[in-house]
Amino acid sequence: MKGFAMLGIGKTGWIEKERPSCGPIDAICKPVALAPCTSDVHTVWEGAIGDRHNLILGHEGVGEVVEVGSLVKDFKPGDKVILPAITPDWNSLEAQAGYSAHSNGMLAGWKFSNIKDGVFGEFFHVNDADGNMALLPDGMDLGAACMLSDMASTGLHGVELADVQFGDKVVVVGIGPVGLMSVAGAAIRGASYIYAVGSRPNCVKVAKEYGATHIINYKEGDIVEQVLALTKGKGVDQVIIAGGDNDTFAQAIRMLKPGGKIGNVNYLGEGDYIKIPRVEWGVGMGHKAINGGLMTGGRLRMEKLAALVTTGRLDPGKMVTHKFNGFEKVEDALMLMKDKPADLIKPVVIL
Amino acid sequence: MKGFAMLGIGKTGWIEKERPSCGPIDAICKPVALAPCTSDVHTVWEGAIGDRHNLILGHEGVGEVVEVGSLVKDFKPGDKVILPAITPDWNSLEAQAGYSAHSNGMLAGWKFSNIKDGVFGEFFHVNDADGNMALLPDGMDLGAACMLSDMASTGLHGVELADVQFGDKVVVVGIGPVGLMSVAGAAIRGASYIYAVGSRPNCVKVAKEYGATHIINYKEGDIVEQVLALTKGKGVDQVIIAGGDNDTFAQAIRMLKPGGKIGNVNYLGEGDYIKIPRVEWGVGMGHKAINGGLMTGGRLRMEKLAALVTTGRLDPGKMVTHKFNGFEKVEDALMLMKDKPADLIKPVVIL
Amino acid sequence: MKGFAMLGIGKTGWIEKERPSCGPIDAICKPVALAPCTSDVHTVWEGAIGDRHNLILGHEGVGEVVEVGSLVKDFKPGDKVILPAITPDWNSLEAQAGYSAHSNGMLAGWKFSNIKDGVFGEFFHVNDADGNMALLPDGMDLGAACMLSDMASTGLHGVELADVQFGDKVVVVGIGPVGLMSVAGAAIRGASYIYAVGSRPNCVKVAKEYGATHIINYKEGDIVEQVLALTKGKGVDQVIIAGGDNDTFAQAIRMLKPGGKIGNVNYLGEGDYIKIPRVEWGVGMGHKAINGGLMTGGRLRMEKLAALVTTGRLDPGKMVTHKFNGFEKVEDALMLMKDKPADLIKPVVIL
Amino acid sequence: MKGFAMLGIGKTGWIEKERPSCGPIDAICKPVALAPCTSDVHTVWEGAIGDRHNLILGHEGVGEVVEVGSLVKDFKPGDKVILPAITPDWNSLEAQAGYSAHSNGMLAGWKFSNIKDGVFGEFFHVNDADGNMALLPDGMDLGAACMLSDMASTGLHGVELADVQFGDKVVVVGIGPVGLMSVAGAAIRGASYIYAVGSRPNCVKVAKEYGATHIINYKEGDIVEQVLALTKGKGVDQVIIAGGDNDTFAQAIRMLKPGGKIGNVNYLGEGDYIKIPRVEWGVGMGHKAINGGLMTGGRLRMEKLAALVTTGRLDPGKMVTHKFNGFEKVEDALMLMKDKPADLIKPVVIL
Repeated sequence: MKGFAMLGIGKTGWIEKERPSCGPIDAICKPVALAPCTSDVHTVWEGAIGDRHNLILGHEGVGEVVEVGSLVKDFKPGDKVILPAITPDWNSLEAQAGYSAHSNGMLAGWKFSNIKDGVFGEFFHVNDADGNMALLPDGMDLGAACMLSDMASTGLHGVELADVQFGDKVVVVGIGPVGLMSVAGAAIRGASYIYAVGSRPNCVKVAKEYGATHIINYKEGDIVEQVLALTKGKGVDQVIIAGGDNDTFAQAIRMLKPGGKIGNVNYLGEGDYIKIPRVEWGVGMGHKAINGGLMTGGRLRMEKLAALVTTGRLDPGKMVTHKFNGFEKVEDALMLMKDKPADLIKPVVIL
Repeated sequence: MKGFAMLGIGKTGWIEKERPSCGPIDAICKPVALAPCTSDVHTVWEGAIGDRHNLILGHEGVGEVVEVGSLVKDFKPGDKVILPAITPDWNSLEAQAGYSAHSNGMLAGWKFSNIKDGVFGEFFHVNDADGNMALLPDGMDLGAACMLSDMASTGLHGVELADVQFGDKVVVVGIGPVGLMSVAGAAIRGASYIYAVGSRPNCVKVAKEYGATHIINYKEGDIVEQVLALTKGKGVDQVIIAGGDNDTFAQAIRMLKPGGKIGNVNYLGEGDYIKIPRVEWGVGMGHKAINGGLMTGGRLRMEKLAALVTTGRLDPGKMVTHKFNGFEKVEDALMLMKDKPADLIKPVVIL
Repeated sequence: MKGFAMLGIGKTGWIEKERPSCGPIDAICKPVALAPCTSDVHTVWEGAIGDRHNLILGHEGVGEVVEVGSLVKDFKPGDKVILPAITPDWNSLEAQAGYSAHSNGMLAGWKFSNIKDGVFGEFFHVNDADGNMALLPDGMDLGAACMLSDMASTGLHGVELADVQFGDKVVVVGIGPVGLMSVAGAAIRGASYIYAVGSRPNCVKVAKEYGATHIINYKEGDIVEQVLALTKGKGVDQVIIAGGDNDTFAQAIRMLKPGGKIGNVNYLGEGDYIKIPRVEWGVGMGHKAINGGLMTGGRLRMEKLAALVTTGRLDPGKMVTHKFNGFEKVEDALMLMKDKPADLIKPVVIL
Repeated sequence: MKGFAMLGIGKTGWIEKERPSCGPIDAICKPVALAPCTSDVHTVWEGAIGDRHNLILGHEGVGEVVEVGSLVKDFKPGDKVILPAITPDWNSLEAQAGYSAHSNGMLAGWKFSNIKDGVFGEFFHVNDADGNMALLPDGMDLGAACMLSDMASTGLHGVELADVQFGDKVVVVGIGPVGLMSVAGAAIRGASYIYAVGSRPNCVKVAKEYGATHIINYKEGDIVEQVLALTKGKGVDQVIIAGGDNDTFAQAIRMLKPGGKIGNVNYLGEGDYIKIPRVEWGVGMGHKAINGGLMTGGRLRMEKLAALVTTGRLDPGKMVTHKFNGFEKVEDALMLMKDKPADLIKPVVIL
């Protein structure tokens, strides 16, 4: 079978591989709709997960089941399914402890395009099919569905990590697709004022539609100062970090009230340390909690997110700015993701 | 001064009383806008809190500060403030434990029109002014502001007690003003499907506008059966009880998944016992949590709710179906609440 | 193979059955030590789970692995393992939601001696071996290990459901083996005063050793009155229900402070309803939370409990009052459990 | 009146001041037993809270009430009371949000010897007497009682911040008096293995008595390596930081499992930044939570801690290695704290 792969750091291409085989609790799917992710870009061009050879890319998409293992109960060939980027081993000790994303190792719930081939192949393997696939609801837009695999689950997890409560004031740093989902998530989690930090015009527009009450543009001055000015020096209840870099944490600490919380869902690709400013962190005792975590994967999460879409609470399809048709277009879609033209939020490939 | 009071069980009237005096941490206010509550009806005509003589009624409203105690720091005469129905003693052991509504006794955070005179007087006393009043935001509609005192805080507390998470399916029993706020609260707390149980046409209309995806009408069959049919027999994640009676709990248990939660904010006025069905409660082990609690009061709560209104997340003003002008109209407003004409949700009196 | 079984309601006996077969993620074990449970008594003589024919009993014990499925990674024949009474399907939606005891149905995480044959057979089947077995630590007393399967996990879950915090005052109703574990659990969870309700002398003795500060004997007067007297009318922070019946809940509500919590782990075998007293429950708004749930099962739980034993925090072996030797003695042990002589807490059978 | 004060950075001495006056909700006490704290040392010799002139030191102790304000309900002259180091403004927005230690500003719940004169005066002022004093239980050892003001509350708060659950493995870094209380707290909060990092022999001895299962001595090698070796490379569930410096956080992150938590209660006195190692923090997504907070103050906390002592769960008196008699000895006691002789854990002064 054919797949679009990372050949080595900095290099991609089409390869031939054997169709994966199906274990007793697994499934084999073929792609129905696919989306490339900034993580694919990090994987290939930044070597984020180390060097890999002939690793088929992709972890966002909708598939059609073509084969299921003998113990799979809830799916059959022909079913259309949403795939989560994170497909945990649900019986692992970490999953039993409530941290399925780290099943059998830190971040090891992330399997597609990391530990095994991803979804950019003619066929792909899904571990624990009953636990990790969700039926595509009838009539759901394929672009929206692809956004659930990673963007929505990650963005909303930022809101969960930051523990937003009714009436809280929230900063969201970064309004790429993950940050936009954090904005949308904060709005349907009870936030009042949402200060979204970003500057790209099309993202600003969608951020406002998703519920941002203020846009904080770093070009107009220090973002910490802007947030403090808007909150009369009090700061905010939560900061969701969905962009920026290691230094964003120091800014976040400065923007937070005592008792405030950081929810980080941003991949930190460089540098040795995240630095927490000692004094503003209350010399260790300011109750400014620092949380960061990989998105929640698995079937239940996808079903819950899909329900948010079908009831109109969440409209992730709005982020799909570019649509391609045909499997071979995953290459163009990925390159677009790499090049980030001004009008891009997310591309989708429909097969 | 003049006040509209409960004279005894079943009797109301205007009385003359001395203007209350102001302690060092307290304030005296005069009313700016007032709303009667179903609780006032329960108090007078059902003797819900026992017999009371010449107790001035009312615990929902906006006031203007006319006097503050010597230790009050954040308010001054002339300030317009939102009053919460519950005004805790914040230094009590219960408040320190996180249950301020029960400060110095179960339900004893409820002082207005219960432990002391309420807000339907020419002047009224606010205990712990810095802790229990919130500035009325500039330009906030007075009707909406009155809804924050009790309706919004109570309705949203039902959502908090039920612990709604992203994508959850929620039943709200009762779509009077509290239940409507529970519907609106569930929608901005992450619920997907919201099944609102009720039948009055104007309430149904507002419930849909607030985010109900389905209306369950008891006239169309058993509400448990209807909910189970809509959820393919699975039941829902949460039931918020904002109406009904003791028997509603048994229905709620039957509608819940294992691991589901009840959040009750309904005043239960009659009967000796709430009955939990043994088998459907998993013979004691079904992890169907039963929570019930009085609304969160105090200044912070009012500030948070006001922020939800000013950012457009919550629109409680929509529930104000009847407006009166002039202090003396609180009597008419209360009688309207007692008589519940078909088109009533909530009346407000503007002074 | 031979097994000791329920033949029908009220009847037990030895039967011959085929040795169970092993699926790809499962294991087959033979017993090393076994303990009968009051639940076995309920199953047989009260028909608690309905009628069953030739169902091998038993869900507490230590086994030796004799066969593992092809996908089992962490166990091999010869390993000695602690078996939890509850062996969830970890990939189920309920387990993903944090309620593994209800995997694929309310209480359906309970498989041994309920949905399939139990551990009182020459061989028995363990579903999801990697997820549901825990290595027996070297040198651990077999009697103590058997107590982890159900008694310790259940007793400590009562403490978890009641959410005991540092310095809290706790009532534990019932000091059979589960209640005793609740007492011990409360003491190592931060409780200060522990009021244990019971009267059997040997249980009273162990309750005190486990940390009960007071024994409440119903023969000396109403237990609610006794607890209120000891707490100067204030009541307690939590009530853990590990004995009694439906009416115990009304007593528990009366003993609780507002903001207090009930944690029920008692099987409720009779009656249609648990009755919650309306007025003492704060007319629905007293923040007295009612929780009840089946014990946490699976591998991680057993590992955590075993660590409590190996570090000396928990000494469940103290409850083993009767020891038998030889597989065929499970019958005697079960009859002892049924007859409950005065000196019995728990029997164990060593093979 | 006389008081032992900070005269300026690096200088202490006895001063004369006016006896403080008593507001309507306050109390005036005279000392019964006092203890100096390492924070007093930081205040004077490290300028931890900035320069202060003639600030009476001390925030740990037991007092006798000599005067109460007109609104104080629960205390009267002659009452002996335990004083918490942190005495919040309970009606502040921060306290209403659950963060009373930061009432009216980050760390501003700390008033004694910080915002106002401390307890090392012939008389001292207690803000909000009903909310911030706790009756000394009859017969409680005065040394033990002094340990509750700060050491026990702080040490146990580390355990709370780290969220220890049944069977968890915990590292406690630092076994000075706060760390010792964290060890004792972890043991009565459900920890199994407790790895205490420290080397002073008398502290090691008490750590073991309090429940440490292993002592990790940095002189015997890298502490991270030692912990990983003891946990087979898996790491621990929680790290409580009660000693060390900014660099301790990087070690803690390396010792933690994914899903693990840090609870810091150590005052961080130097350096600009705490540094979190990017890769070991899961490139931002490892779910290793970083919490740090000032101890819980107020009356309820002191009552709960006192109950732990009277029931024998916690024995903080064991830390009192040096006893002095007479008010004037607070100077000697403080100097001892500054000089830290090998056999010192905590001194106490009895009046």
